[in-house]
Amino acid sequence: MTIIFWDLPSTVGPWSPNTWKVSRYCLNLKKIPYKTEWVEMPDVAAHCQKLGISPTTNKSDWNIIHALPAIHDLSTGIYLSDSVRIAEYLETQYPDGPQIFPRNTIGLQIDFEDCLNAKLASLWEFVVPPIWHILNPTSQVYYRTTREKAWGKTLEDITPSGDDRAGQWKKVEAGFSGMAVWYSKKSGGGPFMMGSQVSWVDFVVGGHLMWFNKAWRDDDPKWKAIMLWNSGMWTTLL
Amino acid sequence: MTIIFWDLPSTVGPWSPNTWKVSRYCLNLKKIPYKTEWVEMPDVAAHCQKLGISPTTNKSDWNIIHALPAIHDLSTGIYLSDSVRIAEYLETQYPDGPQIFPRNTIGLQIDFEDCLNAKLASLWEFVVPPIWHILNPTSQVYYRTTREKAWGKTLEDITPSGDDRAGQWKKVEAGFSGMAVWYSKKSGGGPFMMGSQVSWVDFVVGGHLMWFNKAWRDDDPKWKAIMLWNSGMWTTLL
Repeated sequence: MTIIFWDLPSTVGPWSPNTWKVSRYCLNLKKIPYKTEWVEMPDVAAHCQKLGISPTTNKSDWNIIHALPAIHDLSTGIYLSDSVRIAEYLETQYPDGPQIFPRNTIGLQIDFEDCLNAKLASLWEFVVPPIWHILNPTSQVYYRTTREKAWGKTLEDITPSGDDRAGQWKKVEAGFSGMAVWYSKKSGGGPFMMGSQVSWVDFVVGGHLMWFNKAWRDDDPKWKAIMLWNSGMWTTLL
Repeated sequence: MTIIFWDLPSTVGPWSPNTWKVSRYCLNLKKIPYKTEWVEMPDVAAHCQKLGISPTTNKSDWNIIHALPAIHDLSTGIYLSDSVRIAEYLETQYPDGPQIFPRNTIGLQIDFEDCLNAKLASLWEFVVPPIWHILNPTSQVYYRTTREKAWGKTLEDITPSGDDRAGQWKKVEAGFSGMAVWYSKKSGGGPFMMGSQVSWVDFVVGGHLMWFNKAWRDDDPKWKAIMLWNSGMWTTLL
């Protein structure tokens, strides 16, 4: 079995939290061989339409949207997009070995991303603008246009400044502390939400951390701060 | 072992989603004998302070708040408030029999209430005002004062009207459909989030449903609608 895995390129490797969840984490957990192919953002829709890959979402305010990750499983001939759909497919098609959603927790696992997005809503303003700098020129134009339309302001104006910035960053810290409470509750040790057993929610958190890291790089004070928060627990999920 | 369980009274029995989670659901699941004692809302703070029960929350914008549920475990002498703290205590102190947080899922379970509150945020406007009608007079005054302060408007103005009402109710329906997706994912049948295994999140949903039922009563069109949504799946969680 081999899987073709389509990812979004940058000057510093994969950066999307959604592609990270599937590629590095799920495929590696299940030890499924895969080959990454890169698609620049303006080419994603045509790429998916050509291969008959269903839209990832159908948001009424954005029209139909094709997005990565997407996969082609050469063993079954299946084409698929959307990180959760891909994870469910991999779990069903390749049930041996470690599970992505162990112990019938899939409902509990997939609701988590809504929680994380609510907890870390303030963080997007700090992450979305700097990603532009690591994209290749062809994706930069597309990225700027779509994000500025979504926010209704220029990329340069999305990140708050002054008191507003400090307040939003405090909310980010509170969001991480809230997640740390959830992580602190399990029994029996281990760094993961289910103790020694890694699962989807850890990939969601890990994928988001990788996104922040790519946006800011290792020596940014924001990144250094997160790595120190909550007794350094977030470093173990990378 | 016997537990004294403090609950909020009304003219139609228990109504608080937080006390429902602990009393009917957790204590019954673990088959722990308990005796309910009723405390009117204006008396809760003095009641808890007299018994040395810690505040349930410390919200900076509300000052310190004592709230029910609270318990006194006659076997251990412990006094405790807050539904999650009580559930964790019962699980640790009475580990035999069914678990409230099975299979090391406590972190996944307790994040769920944030998700539910986000999904059903629009619902509060429809539930908070009618609860006033089922309270005893001594609690009605307290309830009106605190809720009107929190919303910044009269109880009568909290529920939206006209187009706004229809729009907010559409969001409620979408919220239930979102939760139904989470519930639909498990394997092996059974009505619960973890299939045939009931757990905390089902108590959270069930407690909220009981709250809506007490607010509206059985013949309210809103209640009838929810009972029909998502193929009637919510009736099974009551």
